[in-house]
Amino acid sequence: MLSDSRTNAGIDQISIFRKMRVWDVPGDRTVLMATSGNLAISQSVVHYVNDGLVLPGQDQPRTMKTVRNLFEAAQLVGAAIRTVHRIDGARLEAKDGTGFSVSCLLGGQIAGETPRLFLIYSAGNFIEATAETPYFQIGETKYGKPILDRALRYDLALTQAIKLGLISMDSTLRSNLSVGLPLDLVLYRTDALRLEMHRSIDETDPYFNIIRHQWSGSLQNAFASLSDPVW
Amino acid sequence: MLSDSRTNAGIDQISIFRKMRVWDVPGDRTVLMATSGNLAISQSVVHYVNDGLVLPGQDQPRTMKTVRNLFEAAQLVGAAIRTVHRIDGARLEAKDGTGFSVSCLLGGQIAGETPRLFLIYSAGNFIEATAETPYFQIGETKYGKPILDRALRYDLALTQAIKLGLISMDSTLRSNLSVGLPLDLVLYRTDALRLEMHRSIDETDPYFNIIRHQWSGSLQNAFASLSDPVW
Repeated sequence: MLSDSRTNAGIDQISIFRKMRVWDVPGDRTVLMATSGNLAISQSVVHYVNDGLVLPGQDQPRTMKTVRNLFEAAQLVGAAIRTVHRIDGARLEAKDGTGFSVSCLLGGQIAGETPRLFLIYSAGNFIEATAETPYFQIGETKYGKPILDRALRYDLALTQAIKLGLISMDSTLRSNLSVGLPLDLVLYRTDALRLEMHRSIDETDPYFNIIRHQWSGSLQNAFASLSDPVW
Repeated sequence: MLSDSRTNAGIDQISIFRKMRVWDVPGDRTVLMATSGNLAISQSVVHYVNDGLVLPGQDQPRTMKTVRNLFEAAQLVGAAIRTVHRIDGARLEAKDGTGFSVSCLLGGQIAGETPRLFLIYSAGNFIEATAETPYFQIGETKYGKPILDRALRYDLALTQAIKLGLISMDSTLRSNLSVGLPLDLVLYRTDALRLEMHRSIDETDPYFNIIRHQWSGSLQNAFASLSDPVW
């Protein structure tokens, strides 16, 4: 899972806020969540996810550390979003408001299940990734989508997926000022039940710089070698 | 100038409408215009541009065939947009409306000037391309922007610019269903004062297919040859 860290409320209010959260209980669960949209909403969502909410059909509240599977984890985030909506929704959705906007990527593994990945919408409902659609994006998604559509496959090796995520994010960084370094990259490997890596990537990161320059050069070469029009 | 031809009003109302207009008076002027946004607005804009409007500071109406320079041509399109806004704006901008949305690329050459390129907004105002920002996009711009940002230069040869435009459009076609074939490609060469080419490109076009396949293959190879993470 990969996120940037730029939050903006107009181009003169740009700040760095981490958008990646990790709940790591080695041997039991590793849950990763990236958020986009309104920062006030997503920070409140994290509060309720840690504080605990009663899920549909249950009596006692659950938190991200006590949900029994990833589906319940997604329900928990959905319930947290709806809780925030009850408090803040009306004013945000008023004519002079900015709208109620938040979305979350939620992935990882809880002991007893295979790894799963969910995309949770502003309404608190969610979808799960499948072999046919093995990736999700949230936030400023369009600039980085073409390369994912061309190269991402369900059986892509994890190292290749890291490269691809960084290329996709780099395309977005170059074309849109509202996305900025540092990046947060978290890596979870099936059945490890512990986080393998949480790396903050800024402009001094040697590997990210290699990737950026190689990719730029490769694109220039690929472009130069394309056939000229035959018309 | 390059445009697609898909218009949608929801995914079950998809039609083909040309978005490219050409006013070609050999020896005197070649003016090209591509439009995006609400089709009802852009078709009405074309009507007023052909019918004639009085420009600021003038007495008699002018049409695209009688404007004296490209700046006046952009003023004419802006005046046409404002005329349509006076008629349709209030209902489109009402709470249950779809908004008043249109934008235009206007380029070409009128005898006595160098070639110029303008981007005209919904408000009828406009900006002109410069050596530092040598291209404009309208409509569904984000998917195709990263490759333009990486490869487009003011002094790029015309054949290279054609390739690049097709690659950029192909990225958008693959990632977004609201953009579709056929494409309209028009080609104007400095001081020709006549259109060099107007080509409709559909899925049977041999060169577009070569470009698509070569580019896809080049990207795959470039991606495969990137260095693995050093972490």
